[in-house]
Amino acid sequence: MKKRIFSGMRPTGRLHLGNYLGALKNWARLQDDYQCTYCVVDWHALTTGYEDTAGLKNKVEEMVLDWLAAGLDPKKSVLFVQSSVKQHAELHLLLSMVTPLGWLERVPTYKQQLRELSGRDIATYGFLGYPVLQAADILAHKAEYVPVGEDQVPHVELTREIVRRFNHFFGNVFPEPEALLAEVKLLPGIDGRKMSKSYGNEISMTASSEEIRDKVQRMVTDPARIHVKDPGHPDVCIVYKFYEAVASEMATGVAEECSKAGIGCVRCKSRLVDLLDQMIEPLRKRRDEYARNPDMVRQILEEGAKKARKTAEAVVAEAREAIGLWR
Amino acid sequence: MKKRIFSGMRPTGRLHLGNYLGALKNWARLQDDYQCTYCVVDWHALTTGYEDTAGLKNKVEEMVLDWLAAGLDPKKSVLFVQSSVKQHAELHLLLSMVTPLGWLERVPTYKQQLRELSGRDIATYGFLGYPVLQAADILAHKAEYVPVGEDQVPHVELTREIVRRFNHFFGNVFPEPEALLAEVKLLPGIDGRKMSKSYGNEISMTASSEEIRDKVQRMVTDPARIHVKDPGHPDVCIVYKFYEAVASEMATGVAEECSKAGIGCVRCKSRLVDLLDQMIEPLRKRRDEYARNPDMVRQILEEGAKKARKTAEAVVAEAREAIGLWR
Repeated sequence: MKKRIFSGMRPTGRLHLGNYLGALKNWARLQDDYQCTYCVVDWHALTTGYEDTAGLKNKVEEMVLDWLAAGLDPKKSVLFVQSSVKQHAELHLLLSMVTPLGWLERVPTYKQQLRELSGRDIATYGFLGYPVLQAADILAHKAEYVPVGEDQVPHVELTREIVRRFNHFFGNVFPEPEALLAEVKLLPGIDGRKMSKSYGNEISMTASSEEIRDKVQRMVTDPARIHVKDPGHPDVCIVYKFYEAVASEMATGVAEECSKAGIGCVRCKSRLVDLLDQMIEPLRKRRDEYARNPDMVRQILEEGAKKARKTAEAVVAEAREAIGLWR
Repeated sequence: MKKRIFSGMRPTGRLHLGNYLGALKNWARLQDDYQCTYCVVDWHALTTGYEDTAGLKNKVEEMVLDWLAAGLDPKKSVLFVQSSVKQHAELHLLLSMVTPLGWLERVPTYKQQLRELSGRDIATYGFLGYPVLQAADILAHKAEYVPVGEDQVPHVELTREIVRRFNHFFGNVFPEPEALLAEVKLLPGIDGRKMSKSYGNEISMTASSEEIRDKVQRMVTDPARIHVKDPGHPDVCIVYKFYEAVASEMATGVAEECSKAGIGCVRCKSRLVDLLDQMIEPLRKRRDEYARNPDMVRQILEEGAKKARKTAEAVVAEAREAIGLWR
């Protein structure tokens, strides 16, 4: 039997290439070897965003289109929206009973986010509890592996601690999930900072050829290279970083040519445009197909929710029974 | 249309006369004028009791028998067990997003219980959040009134604050519930302390004639009254307090006779035994009937849960829609 994987993503609307290369491409790859469950965690979005929820539905739908574009396949995986599966809320409540407050207060991202988002009023009960909700998401599907980024490893570790405590009191109900770190090259934004919509330095995951050309055009290259015949320094060049991330087999060649001024930035960028366009084209196509069929997308999510409810209900029933709740 | 009432009680097993006169008798009376929903809050029991849940199912069932014995009527009211209605957990999660941590940390019973139950490890996320869960219980049924004891008034007040904050962000979804304080004479235990099973000073709500006689026998009377002809002091006599609570119309007469040594303690107690026995007899009878029909009790709770789910689902759907969650 295939091992079970769970991962979730907050609904942020359209995704960018960094999301694709950093997570989705990996999620798509995992579908062949694991039983995968991928969840749009819209309740999590409320922990920091309850004050502005106007665009939430739209963000869910746009992101799911990108998931499907990236190759997440409803025939292989369970795709659903968290808030349509109440069992996650129920398990969150049950786990909350055994989770010491101190564990949550010590989560590294907790105090960090309290500081970073100090403009927003997020010192709420829900925000403090979001690692418990994450644990519930993972455990409602008895996931054995959780593909995450480095920054999320402490949360998976907390889930393991909650499992140990729950199992200690009520018997061996949950497996301890393990973080699954993908080896990904971090893709910078076109200005060299972290790629992020809030910086406006992103390339959409399904960018048009025009967008790709425009964005690559604006990429910062070696500022010391003024004339074509000046040798370049690939290590400070964003274009080079993109070659490394999307066509690593070409990267060494590009670096050599650049260093000996064998290729100019214009031609180098033009090649990258073609590369990105080739990579993105199938994604763009798939997205367009699904975007023309909103009913189909809705049905995919409803089917996914149905499956997720069934799995989660069995797991939560087992937890209820282990605790000794009335039924 | 009748106004809606919600109240809940933790599953503590068999109830005592103090529970009956302090709460249940009132709950039963309210059934004629209100649409009442009464809930066995077993999730709440976990907030302080997750370390020992062995007897939980039994406690639920024993308490429900006492509810039915007290005249809670499944034809008039909705009677159900909290954990069988997931919508309460879902609403708890939604409300948690807008509930400031500071509000919970300031709840008077929070720090008090942390101190009183210092032997148990209750500094958990779930324990901190129990007023949010209470709010969810009340609001899932859009209750307008909540019959509670004096000590619970701050929790109803907190529910009102959560309502105001939720409605502020998402529109006018919830009514602000009001506490409904019953005028009840507090019944002491037979030793004069608060009546409580943990002190072993209680009289069961459906005590047998033998138990009544035995417990009244052991009640502390005026210690200064040694001989029958000594005048007594009703104000320090537990027997007198019982007359006040269960037969207030006789209390003045009893006090007069006692003060002028017109009646001895033995006869006074014997009269009280008869009074209690008369009061308890119909309760005992009803309990016996239901106790002989566990299937019927189970069906009552399942029917109640079905109704509660229907009501709560409509309310939570409205809250989801107001927040703007995907559906």
